[in-house]
Amino acid sequence: MALHHAEPGEIISVRPLGEKLGDSKSTTLLRSEHLQVFRVILCKDEVFSDHAVPGEITVQCLEGLIEFHIGDDNVQQLAAGDLLYLNGEQPHALKALADASVLVTIYHPRHPDANS
Amino acid sequence: MALHHAEPGEIISVRPLGEKLGDSKSTTLLRSEHLQVFRVILCKDEVFSDHAVPGEITVQCLEGLIEFHIGDDNVQQLAAGDLLYLNGEQPHALKALADASVLVTIYHPRHPDANS
Repeated sequence: MALHHAEPGEIISVRPLGEKLGDSKSTTLLRSEHLQVFRVILCKDEVFSDHAVPGEITVQCLEGLIEFHIGDDNVQQLAAGDLLYLNGEQPHALKALADASVLVTIYHPRHPDANS
Repeated sequence: MALHHAEPGEIISVRPLGEKLGDSKSTTLLRSEHLQVFRVILCKDEVFSDHAVPGEITVQCLEGLIEFHIGDDNVQQLAAGDLLYLNGEQPHALKALADASVLVTIYHPRHPDANS
């Protein structure tokens, strides 16, 4: 069954999950022609290992605390309400210092369904 | 003087402004090659009248309460933590039902500085 993605104009909650975080999974919330928005769930000590994507991205911490690595040398902490962006192909990694959820918006140079 | 826009990897606060909202102005937070992120401030009863942009956008209410109009017939309320997206050229308008700030991410088909 295809997962539901929001339609234009449909309201999605990006509120903190709080106590429900541990029972939640990372989810794509919407895909438009060029944008994809998803919520990444990372429980304490969980790692989203080094990766890069073709287009620019924004990363917004919704709750918890994230150790955010850019390349080999840049390490910062993201708490709720912190946002940053990266250029396409910038390698980055995330480690949860506390249970956390993160809103990621990716610009796709072409429609994400056109990759297959 | 050019306004400061964030560099890749630079942390920006998108926390609620709370009591500082009344003294704040709408601000562009970052411009990458294809993305522009800004915070729109609307005090109670203020209106951002009907408009449209060429690329897809996401709209996230950070605080307060917004009456969000899409076209002539679709009216919804956005509270803190509500997000939606629109296709390019979809006309929309905002009215603040309470002091509010809203995070808008616009996909630009071409670099925003190329529009001069």
